[in-house]
Amino acid sequence: MKRKICVVVTARPSYSRIKTALTAIQNHPDLELQLVIAGSALLDRYGNAVDFIEKDGFPIAAKVFMVLEGENPTTMAKTTGLGVMELTNVFYNLKPDAVITIADRFETIATSIAASYQNIPLVHIQGGEVTGSIDEKVRHANTKLADLHLVCTHDARERVIKLGEEPEKVINTGCPSIDLAKMVSENPNLNFNPIAKYGGVGMELNWQEGYIVVMQHPVTTEYKQAKKHVLETLHAIKVLDYPTFWFWPNVDAGSDGTSNGIRSFRELEKPGNIHFFKNMNPIDFLKLLKNAKALIGNSSAGLRECAYLGVPVVNIGNRQHRRSRAQNVTDVDYNREQILKVTKNALVREHYPSSELYGDGNAGEKIAEILATVELTYSKTITY
Amino acid sequence: MKRKICVVVTARPSYSRIKTALTAIQNHPDLELQLVIAGSALLDRYGNAVDFIEKDGFPIAAKVFMVLEGENPTTMAKTTGLGVMELTNVFYNLKPDAVITIADRFETIATSIAASYQNIPLVHIQGGEVTGSIDEKVRHANTKLADLHLVCTHDARERVIKLGEEPEKVINTGCPSIDLAKMVSENPNLNFNPIAKYGGVGMELNWQEGYIVVMQHPVTTEYKQAKKHVLETLHAIKVLDYPTFWFWPNVDAGSDGTSNGIRSFRELEKPGNIHFFKNMNPIDFLKLLKNAKALIGNSSAGLRECAYLGVPVVNIGNRQHRRSRAQNVTDVDYNREQILKVTKNALVREHYPSSELYGDGNAGEKIAEILATVELTYSKTITY
Amino acid sequence: MKRKICVVVTARPSYSRIKTALTAIQNHPDLELQLVIAGSALLDRYGNAVDFIEKDGFPIAAKVFMVLEGENPTTMAKTTGLGVMELTNVFYNLKPDAVITIADRFETIATSIAASYQNIPLVHIQGGEVTGSIDEKVRHANTKLADLHLVCTHDARERVIKLGEEPEKVINTGCPSIDLAKMVSENPNLNFNPIAKYGGVGMELNWQEGYIVVMQHPVTTEYKQAKKHVLETLHAIKVLDYPTFWFWPNVDAGSDGTSNGIRSFRELEKPGNIHFFKNMNPIDFLKLLKNAKALIGNSSAGLRECAYLGVPVVNIGNRQHRRSRAQNVTDVDYNREQILKVTKNALVREHYPSSELYGDGNAGEKIAEILATVELTYSKTITY
Amino acid sequence: MKRKICVVVTARPSYSRIKTALTAIQNHPDLELQLVIAGSALLDRYGNAVDFIEKDGFPIAAKVFMVLEGENPTTMAKTTGLGVMELTNVFYNLKPDAVITIADRFETIATSIAASYQNIPLVHIQGGEVTGSIDEKVRHANTKLADLHLVCTHDARERVIKLGEEPEKVINTGCPSIDLAKMVSENPNLNFNPIAKYGGVGMELNWQEGYIVVMQHPVTTEYKQAKKHVLETLHAIKVLDYPTFWFWPNVDAGSDGTSNGIRSFRELEKPGNIHFFKNMNPIDFLKLLKNAKALIGNSSAGLRECAYLGVPVVNIGNRQHRRSRAQNVTDVDYNREQILKVTKNALVREHYPSSELYGDGNAGEKIAEILATVELTYSKTITY
Repeated sequence: MKRKICVVVTARPSYSRIKTALTAIQNHPDLELQLVIAGSALLDRYGNAVDFIEKDGFPIAAKVFMVLEGENPTTMAKTTGLGVMELTNVFYNLKPDAVITIADRFETIATSIAASYQNIPLVHIQGGEVTGSIDEKVRHANTKLADLHLVCTHDARERVIKLGEEPEKVINTGCPSIDLAKMVSENPNLNFNPIAKYGGVGMELNWQEGYIVVMQHPVTTEYKQAKKHVLETLHAIKVLDYPTFWFWPNVDAGSDGTSNGIRSFRELEKPGNIHFFKNMNPIDFLKLLKNAKALIGNSSAGLRECAYLGVPVVNIGNRQHRRSRAQNVTDVDYNREQILKVTKNALVREHYPSSELYGDGNAGEKIAEILATVELTYSKTITY
Repeated sequence: MKRKICVVVTARPSYSRIKTALTAIQNHPDLELQLVIAGSALLDRYGNAVDFIEKDGFPIAAKVFMVLEGENPTTMAKTTGLGVMELTNVFYNLKPDAVITIADRFETIATSIAASYQNIPLVHIQGGEVTGSIDEKVRHANTKLADLHLVCTHDARERVIKLGEEPEKVINTGCPSIDLAKMVSENPNLNFNPIAKYGGVGMELNWQEGYIVVMQHPVTTEYKQAKKHVLETLHAIKVLDYPTFWFWPNVDAGSDGTSNGIRSFRELEKPGNIHFFKNMNPIDFLKLLKNAKALIGNSSAGLRECAYLGVPVVNIGNRQHRRSRAQNVTDVDYNREQILKVTKNALVREHYPSSELYGDGNAGEKIAEILATVELTYSKTITY
Repeated sequence: MKRKICVVVTARPSYSRIKTALTAIQNHPDLELQLVIAGSALLDRYGNAVDFIEKDGFPIAAKVFMVLEGENPTTMAKTTGLGVMELTNVFYNLKPDAVITIADRFETIATSIAASYQNIPLVHIQGGEVTGSIDEKVRHANTKLADLHLVCTHDARERVIKLGEEPEKVINTGCPSIDLAKMVSENPNLNFNPIAKYGGVGMELNWQEGYIVVMQHPVTTEYKQAKKHVLETLHAIKVLDYPTFWFWPNVDAGSDGTSNGIRSFRELEKPGNIHFFKNMNPIDFLKLLKNAKALIGNSSAGLRECAYLGVPVVNIGNRQHRRSRAQNVTDVDYNREQILKVTKNALVREHYPSSELYGDGNAGEKIAEILATVELTYSKTITY
Repeated sequence: MKRKICVVVTARPSYSRIKTALTAIQNHPDLELQLVIAGSALLDRYGNAVDFIEKDGFPIAAKVFMVLEGENPTTMAKTTGLGVMELTNVFYNLKPDAVITIADRFETIATSIAASYQNIPLVHIQGGEVTGSIDEKVRHANTKLADLHLVCTHDARERVIKLGEEPEKVINTGCPSIDLAKMVSENPNLNFNPIAKYGGVGMELNWQEGYIVVMQHPVTTEYKQAKKHVLETLHAIKVLDYPTFWFWPNVDAGSDGTSNGIRSFRELEKPGNIHFFKNMNPIDFLKLLKNAKALIGNSSAGLRECAYLGVPVVNIGNRQHRRSRAQNVTDVDYNREQILKVTKNALVREHYPSSELYGDGNAGEKIAEILATVELTYSKTITY
């Protein structure tokens, strides 16, 4: 009998962090994929990731609407509570042999609780890293609820073991997002017109001669400053006056502030060099990055995929605090002058050499093979 | 302005683990107590702890019904999800300066999420210990969500620091339950008739010449064996034929099995030597223990309060796996012969000398003083 | 393509009110049954109706744990809210062509909201009757949310039409519970030993020479008097000293009071003539009624099935206030003397002639045929 | 002791429907106001009604985030279920003597259930009317759950009585929204610049010489056509080329479609004559209407306040199907030609004479006086 592996995708960025593993699970003779799409991955306002997932041919076992409106810490917590209740039901009915929770977004702990409390073996992907924001707490709490840890870096593996997990339960597979980056590196041609294919709003741009990409999320522990923070970036980019593709933020405490900042800036300042997107399919997004002069903002893609792709990254503020980074990343403050200056430098330099810090491009296959063969348990004790 | 300290009590046993701290917070000139009673602490079936709390004179800021019926892993998870949603609201309205979550029961993570996601400093009491059951996962996840750790033993402090917490944020205060044990040790006389005062069901007992106490909870990770496990103990106690006060289990996955086991045993075997209680106020309970020949079962009171009281404990099965224990504890399997044999030994020996393994009896005062003076933060990064 | 008919059973008594319709739907060539079991029908404490349903061979499409503990008006309301959320998900995934909500228990409005808000045609069974308790409000609110009304009596049909529903959408099918009563009337022999087959607790009884049945539920609008009310009945039955089979109450506000009343009465008064059951399969229950001298309490079975069976009924208090009744029913107050006196009269008389007030025994078939052929709509406007 | 009257406002339009009653309750010597703000009234995306309420000086007893994102029938139902759970808690803690639920928005039934199930007298304001959409079902279900009915028209009173309510429990007070309309009629001068005061997005308009107002909500039972429907209106208004103030829709199934329609129309068609607002305080909004040439769309304000104000209304589609209307209303289909033609007629005519169809302007005072003096009950039986 095939092992049933239930994967819960709750947000747009989680999909690119798991996509090649989904394919490998689906193709593995001893595994059956149960894919659950939940949270903002179902919402049009956040780019309707579910559409890309369905177009990629993955069958969806259940959809769970669980996002409370408000984008503040209160609704973030309530969304998580609702997620626990709903996902508990889903797992109760699907009866998986293992559940996978991805990384460290706030609502991923709902997956962890719903599985572990029901004595279902819990696999945590991408634990052991270090950042700022509530993600830092959530990630390590996920580790303590999980039974098996598939991590992305050597450092992360060391850290999870230090957290009291059995070393044989902690395996460095690399990050599936790097698998996609590898595919894109092997075939880097930007074979589509982003505006023609994805619409979006804002100016038509003369991007063919060079462009940058911006992706800036609120930091939940600083959520009241979200609008102020994004305005620094917006001012810098306006002054830079270089063709820019800008992606709307994730649903987090503060994303209302970030979105408001963007909307009011558009109304008042009418920046002529920015075009806005909600989402792209992961491969197209990476091609866009690969061909960009730089990525500006605080997306983890800057530290992960861009390390492999060699794209210069201007990383703003505390969101990626202490996460492992290759030489492609330059850190700056929430400060328009700093952002402008460092971005200008990036425009005039070559891409960096590729780094395998977050994996060598085979994570999906490794993950599927481990899931097919490892002993699955749901009870553990700290090692010290 | 006084610091508002919100304490969430979700179950009968949590109350004795925090009671002296509640008093000390209430009496501290710089603190204001916001007491929230939730979960099974509100339910008649589980002994209505809320009545004892109100009789003790603590004002209650909010009551939260959140327990789903079913006593299985599925309802346990859903109860937790509901708790997150409800407690989020409570904290949003009470606006505390810090929230205290107690120990490691499954629903305590609801308190942790509701506070930490709303950027409210979270204080975890009684972290860093080791046991079996889902509690083991929950306790360490609470640690990773909490900002300040007030632990009960030297070992626990070492363990929390190893988990990556800043040493100055981890303070060994001892357990408030030992404060009560100290009071009882100083005034050990059993000055009430348990059956006259608390009713309960079952036989009138000739307990004045000696009695034992039994308290056995289900183990959530073995919840389908709950009935089988408790029947071993019931058979042993019936054969022992010695006056016995037996306490009903907590609300956990499997407590239905435990309760069913007890009910059907009563109907079929009509044991003549057992009287059943749902709850007692904490001081009365400790006096009952202090004057008992032994405590049988798997309650943490056997390892904590009984260490200080010197009462012999027959500890059954995996629930307290690896928790620190003094010499008063003898471990046995779910096996009626073993239980019977070790209990018989306990009946004929003296009590043990008092151990301060879990504190010296001043935890409540220490906790209040720390809460009044420590810097309260809600953001942290792992130390390694 | 078959029409998918989703039926939600939330409690023990609802099952006998729908059972023959389930069979008829299952057997109909143009219909597909989607059976959802929820609420107290899943709970051991309330007789685990789900076990009988599975033994009867009905496949279950989804199970929903939704009952909050506490049995008070607050948990009753929260249970309903949770039911709305959970059933919404269930219908979203099952995509039924019509949803059936049964009668008037408090949580049935959850089914009504979850279906009607999602634009799924809602069929209400057993509307248009009159009683006391919160049921009276819930029943008529269900009518106003429903698109098709399959009622049990001529009176009920008139009342639903007066409520502003289109006459052609209101059809008197009779009650499926009468279908079972008819089967039992045709084959009334009590071919099982109730205690041997169902266990239960309490005394062995010499019931073969005659017995009565008691079933008394709390009235939600008088829930604080639940214990007092049931004690009147208990005292009357003890004094009567006649073999008695007593069924535990439904989960409602006050059922804790009713249960407590029963438990404490058992401990203190040790009634020698009462045996307690949690549940029976519907046919066995009706056989037990058919062979009883009388039914005492406030169950709707007294007014419905017992009308057909001709069994004398002593109907206590306000729960069935104004519900249509045949000559087999005598109303009394919450008063031990009245209950005793009227019950004594019942013991010495013959059964009544059968009444078809609630149907002629073909309701299940009629319901299935209507569901297969009627136009299904989800939008309506009041007729006046 | 003052009677505690708890009013639940869940959406922007409900506030103007209750505002003068809030003032009158607050000022009444025998009443205490407990104001609960919930649902979309808390959300920035829907105009942050809570800000206007706080500016008007009403103290808020509790805020409840309960809106699930998605704006489809599924999230609408789940929002309602969540509302039941949350409001149950709120009423449990506030212990009101009566709860007021307003009109017929989908989530108002949550207020009704949370109050009636907890045996709290429920007052329904603005029942007995007739419309299309899910509101039609919800309104009459609210009536069947409520104990006291304060209605706005003679017709509505007749209808509620026909629904089986006791005539003395059904009182025609008129609509509090007409109280505001009366104030505005007595002082109709547009003493503020809408764009300067409320910002909004879109074109600067030359509105001083004449303008129209548009407000179009999705119809939940036709929610998939929401975008198509609003586009008809957008095209008509663009062709009309007359200064237009347009208000964003309420949160309902389909509001995403309506919003998308508006956003994409703005991007593609860049209409030069439309300025968009999210919200205004109720008095300002009515002044804007009073001075407008016409109101276009399907808002109930067109039938209620505009009847009193005499403003011509072009009422589009089924949302107000069969609601009582004065001579100021002209009905049209979802059809750009019809909309355009009828709107053009409105631009060239005078306002209508004032109609008191929905009240004479004293509803708030009447409501408060009734609440202070009426007998409050929580149990009822249908009259027939």
